[in-house]
Amino acid sequence: MTVEANLRNRICDLYASYAACLDDGRYGEWPEFFTPDAWYRVVPRENYDQGLPLSTLSLKGKGMMKDRIYGIESTIFHAPYYQRHIIGLPIISIDENSVIRCEVNYSIFRVKRDFSAEIYSIGKYIDCVHVLENDLKFSEKFCVFDNDIIPNSLIYPI
Amino acid sequence: MTVEANLRNRICDLYASYAACLDDGRYGEWPEFFTPDAWYRVVPRENYDQGLPLSTLSLKGKGMMKDRIYGIESTIFHAPYYQRHIIGLPIISIDENSVIRCEVNYSIFRVKRDFSAEIYSIGKYIDCVHVLENDLKFSEKFCVFDNDIIPNSLIYPI
Amino acid sequence: MTVEANLRNRICDLYASYAACLDDGRYGEWPEFFTPDAWYRVVPRENYDQGLPLSTLSLKGKGMMKDRIYGIESTIFHAPYYQRHIIGLPIISIDENSVIRCEVNYSIFRVKRDFSAEIYSIGKYIDCVHVLENDLKFSEKFCVFDNDIIPNSLIYPI
Repeated sequence: MTVEANLRNRICDLYASYAACLDDGRYGEWPEFFTPDAWYRVVPRENYDQGLPLSTLSLKGKGMMKDRIYGIESTIFHAPYYQRHIIGLPIISIDENSVIRCEVNYSIFRVKRDFSAEIYSIGKYIDCVHVLENDLKFSEKFCVFDNDIIPNSLIYPI
Repeated sequence: MTVEANLRNRICDLYASYAACLDDGRYGEWPEFFTPDAWYRVVPRENYDQGLPLSTLSLKGKGMMKDRIYGIESTIFHAPYYQRHIIGLPIISIDENSVIRCEVNYSIFRVKRDFSAEIYSIGKYIDCVHVLENDLKFSEKFCVFDNDIIPNSLIYPI
Repeated sequence: MTVEANLRNRICDLYASYAACLDDGRYGEWPEFFTPDAWYRVVPRENYDQGLPLSTLSLKGKGMMKDRIYGIESTIFHAPYYQRHIIGLPIISIDENSVIRCEVNYSIFRVKRDFSAEIYSIGKYIDCVHVLENDLKFSEKFCVFDNDIIPNSLIYPI
């Protein structure tokens, strides 16, 4: 509740830029939002709430992230689709080790060519943010999604 | 338009915390977002716009709110579901009696076990906020929803 | 990334007020969000990304906007519907000519009488904002929508 206004604005910018990167399809830039050894995890809420380790996607370090992007852009065959993130108001706190913790609800819509828009993923980002050479980077990003049923498949990062 | 930045940030935090409380299913904490004699009302837009008193839900005072939560958790039989609030940017003003008035659009998605996410409620919060012992509390919270058709039923607060 | 906090808050207010104007159905006030010779354009993402000029709607100047509103309120026969905008976190920058540029994701839901809510339009506002006599006005507002398929028709501004 007592996060300084400037940091708060920078975190809002971080989320807006993150969404724009993915929604614009600039996947090559996506790993740059993370610290070198960050953990990116997409996990169903059911598993997260029970502390179960199984994740839909779990990438540790920028190397794995770049590999995933290479896979998406060069090896996975899939029907292309657009994503659109609407990210809510963040809850920001700073823990005793000066780690910035952010929780924020998200909704992601998907549009496939010649189809109507549909709800793609609904959930909450549970993130840790570090200041790295004056830039904000995610050191942990858990995408905890509510919808057990993933429509079709999860290709691009969310 | 001239609301001081710190108050504005605190109100954004209030909405984010309110959403997190409900989306996490911490219903026992929900009445604590209100002043002791607050009015919580869920009302269709059609009725609200015409000044009609009929509400889908109308709770006056924290006693009624606690009773509702007791009902939800202990007596109503219903299929469990998750809620997820995405709350927009608030319009904040302060009236001549120093009451803080907030209007903010919301979308709420619902996920039932083994089903896809669906749009649950779409509308606007029309709220009054009071400063109570340095905390912000809702003294009035009207959830004015656009969708005449409520999918299934309204169990948890929105 | 270095936009001053006060300007940032005013831009958030601009978007919140814009959404409220349309969602409340106060269409007569809508042209007042623009500079006299502003360009309002609704364009599919497919066309926008390729630099193609064809737009779903293209209005240049407040005169055309007022004419459109007159058409909506007085001449077009259509089933009435509600709109509800949920606008995300904006990315704001100021270019070398002191023009404020804003990009922000939006989701718009539609409710027709006696139907459930549905996703109406999903996309991004790509806007230029000018300070006109101390008020913020859009000098350019491009609504770039992802969904190729517009459900039914586009009557009201988005």
